[in-house]
Amino acid sequence: MRNAISPTRVEDYPEWYQQVIKAADLAENSEVRGCMVIKPWGYSLWENIQRCLDKMFRDTGHRNAYFPLFIPLSYMEKEAEHVEGFAKECAVVTHHRLEPGENGGLVPAGPLQEPLIIRPTSETIIGAAFSRWVQSYRDLPLLINQWANVVRWELRTRLFLRTAEFLWQEGHTVHATEQEAVDETLQMLDVYADFCENFMAVPVIKGRKTASERFPGAVETYCIEAMMQDQKALQAGTSHFLGQNFSRASNIKFQDENSQESFAWTTSWGVSTRLVGALIMAHGDDDGLVMPPRIAASHIAIIPMLNKEEIKDQVLEYCDDLVAKLKEINYYGTNIRVEYDKRDTSSGQRTWEWIKKGVPIRIEVGGRELEEGNVFMGRRDKGPKDKKAMAKDEFVASVTDILDDIHNNLFTRAKKFRKENTKKIDDKDEFYKFFTPENKKKPEIHGGFALCHWSGDADVEEQVKKDLKVTIRCIPLDDDGEEGKCIISGKPSKQRVIFGKAY
Amino acid sequence: MRNAISPTRVEDYPEWYQQVIKAADLAENSEVRGCMVIKPWGYSLWENIQRCLDKMFRDTGHRNAYFPLFIPLSYMEKEAEHVEGFAKECAVVTHHRLEPGENGGLVPAGPLQEPLIIRPTSETIIGAAFSRWVQSYRDLPLLINQWANVVRWELRTRLFLRTAEFLWQEGHTVHATEQEAVDETLQMLDVYADFCENFMAVPVIKGRKTASERFPGAVETYCIEAMMQDQKALQAGTSHFLGQNFSRASNIKFQDENSQESFAWTTSWGVSTRLVGALIMAHGDDDGLVMPPRIAASHIAIIPMLNKEEIKDQVLEYCDDLVAKLKEINYYGTNIRVEYDKRDTSSGQRTWEWIKKGVPIRIEVGGRELEEGNVFMGRRDKGPKDKKAMAKDEFVASVTDILDDIHNNLFTRAKKFRKENTKKIDDKDEFYKFFTPENKKKPEIHGGFALCHWSGDADVEEQVKKDLKVTIRCIPLDDDGEEGKCIISGKPSKQRVIFGKAY
Repeated sequence: MRNAISPTRVEDYPEWYQQVIKAADLAENSEVRGCMVIKPWGYSLWENIQRCLDKMFRDTGHRNAYFPLFIPLSYMEKEAEHVEGFAKECAVVTHHRLEPGENGGLVPAGPLQEPLIIRPTSETIIGAAFSRWVQSYRDLPLLINQWANVVRWELRTRLFLRTAEFLWQEGHTVHATEQEAVDETLQMLDVYADFCENFMAVPVIKGRKTASERFPGAVETYCIEAMMQDQKALQAGTSHFLGQNFSRASNIKFQDENSQESFAWTTSWGVSTRLVGALIMAHGDDDGLVMPPRIAASHIAIIPMLNKEEIKDQVLEYCDDLVAKLKEINYYGTNIRVEYDKRDTSSGQRTWEWIKKGVPIRIEVGGRELEEGNVFMGRRDKGPKDKKAMAKDEFVASVTDILDDIHNNLFTRAKKFRKENTKKIDDKDEFYKFFTPENKKKPEIHGGFALCHWSGDADVEEQVKKDLKVTIRCIPLDDDGEEGKCIISGKPSKQRVIFGKAY
Repeated sequence: MRNAISPTRVEDYPEWYQQVIKAADLAENSEVRGCMVIKPWGYSLWENIQRCLDKMFRDTGHRNAYFPLFIPLSYMEKEAEHVEGFAKECAVVTHHRLEPGENGGLVPAGPLQEPLIIRPTSETIIGAAFSRWVQSYRDLPLLINQWANVVRWELRTRLFLRTAEFLWQEGHTVHATEQEAVDETLQMLDVYADFCENFMAVPVIKGRKTASERFPGAVETYCIEAMMQDQKALQAGTSHFLGQNFSRASNIKFQDENSQESFAWTTSWGVSTRLVGALIMAHGDDDGLVMPPRIAASHIAIIPMLNKEEIKDQVLEYCDDLVAKLKEINYYGTNIRVEYDKRDTSSGQRTWEWIKKGVPIRIEVGGRELEEGNVFMGRRDKGPKDKKAMAKDEFVASVTDILDDIHNNLFTRAKKFRKENTKKIDDKDEFYKFFTPENKKKPEIHGGFALCHWSGDADVEEQVKKDLKVTIRCIPLDDDGEEGKCIISGKPSKQRVIFGKAY
């Protein structure tokens, strides 16, 4: 049997990814270089991600606010490493109106005294506000989050994974002590990991970045890394301990209980629409998108079979009742979302559409179900033909359990896949073989994650990046304390790190 | 007794507005010209507005999506009136990186082949997507909404009312027939009016704009207009029937049931963070912000009196229970939001803070309340001293009724104010007198809304704008059919229109 998506994952993974997005109608490229249009089905996924994360941020004491899109160039320049890190990808506003040009068309006019950068991230402009808001230890901790669009002028873009404009949240916090700021950084990393695993069903590894992979201006960058089905790593979220770097740059000072003035300690942390890319690549199969139930755009597709005119009304009545009952059930903070698909096309055609769109549960209802008081159920985590009849009432009563079971199944499957494609390697030749594609036509095929010793040398990182396009994804927080020797240099090493190819 | 806000509304209305925003900690100007920082308390108001409106949009069949921040200059130019209308206030991106300049600092580099406009509104970029999405009558109607930031480079800005960057929603829809598009335009106007009156407690007048006040490129612009406490009009939302202007510009065509191809009919409609300005100016008093309960950042402030050490624990326990019970109560789709203010400051100081921040209900609890099983309640729609004791259980049982009563009271009060400051005028001298400030030091003081006959002459509009800074706010949809003569030209007129000074 032919699959719904062509090519399949094995045939051409990058192209499979594009085709899944197209078949599920999630997003498309716009005519603006590197900017995407997020279509309703894809945007729903982002809205659900937002809703769940926003609650987690509130529950940990954060409040939302909104800061300007524009950053004056001089503000960007306040933190030297920061501006250097972003200089190559800044969209710059230089004019504030349009005027008729010499050739009839309009041209930019009204040059600005100081160019404005479209925020690639907001540490500097938020820092300026924080320096006004923070005066005393009583103003701390200051725990703020912003949902916003940001722009990083990337040359190679890919829907959701890397786009010139993307949507994200950026948390920015200020603390009186170093320890508090470190604790906050790690707390938000835990929130991200919790969200990815328990809402998106994507297992992640928590770790620290090496110096070369740190956020520009950070003292320490923590991250969560996930494995996609092509064995590549995807950085799903980052949390930065900024030390006093940005409080010095933005002059965020406070008076402590003894009226001593000192610079505050800050953090920042973010996840983006990239998470949508992560869930597509972690769970999708050769029939299309597979949505994790807890953030699914819709939970259930109801497909009445309307081909027999004489029972059409009864079938619809039966389904009306089912839909009404399902919509009253709460699942993870919202009512169950139902696609009630009464369109005048064959039930097979409609079924395949919802398979491609990744709806967790499909229900078909025809004459037989009507007679037996059943529903005919298909689960997206199983094969398209693997369906079973169930009493209607039983289905309604157990629908949240079924959704949970799908979630658990997706999570277990992804975790098993990661385990199968993660290897402890202690031999340099084996390491090179692990990351060298056997088939040159498929440069993306490689071993996965290599858990290897590394002594901390930046030279080693440069070497493997040059030779293999492999980087250290993170230094895992969860470490068994086993010491060894660096896989490349042979120097003594305190712990294993994760090497991988990354998105 | 001195009021909490200085100056008062009568003393200096524009400055009163700024001081209310400051005292309630809603927003502040940023260092970026014309761009504001929306602080958590102000942003909560916007989030609640979003939540309520978003539900109304979904209930009328609309779905959210997201389109690029950037519009290529050539796209803006596709609709001639449109680009002319926005050319003077476009922020233009011309470069995509920064490079070290001659004087050491960074300068814009990497010039773009085509300048990009930061969206001032998205008809043209969304139209480009719609031209791909719409092929057949089966794709229609297409009902899309976007929550986004937009930029209009205004020279004179004022927090919430007019800022260079603002947050808004923009609905964009495509229809097969003219009638359907007109119906949609009017439906969304009704949604806006419903929202303003039933959630924000701000009475509005629904009407049509005159040609000179239309959205650039629209065939017809409908609006809702509200009266502020300085008798000025505030346009709170607009809904545009775009005819086929933008479908021609963007090539949005469809095949009808007979395979005939035609241009589609489109609409667009929007409200913005300006609504926050509207509610401040409609309800605020000389003690600060007055939040309408259904979108209030928080519903209730609980202020335990903690000055008596011996009963402190009991007071807190009593309040803990109250807070827990209140938070379980649902009001307009969310749980009651409570500010439980246990800070170590005098209860008077805390009370005044929540008055200035506009919380609808304040509850004080001290030894007496404890003894009597009461709460001491103050309502923000009444004077600060007008408080009453109530049995605790009774308060919990009736809290949503009290909130509704505050809503109704605010709405009735605002409607009465508008009625008192609206006058039918048929005499030109009286008209001029109505709009001429008696006190030249207070140019903002004038009569309010003048309901006058107007024959449709653009010359008349120009004249009163020049003479009095007065414009036709709208041609009311609700008209009694009374004919007459234009107040300025004496020409025959079919209906009265609303003249006013506007924000």
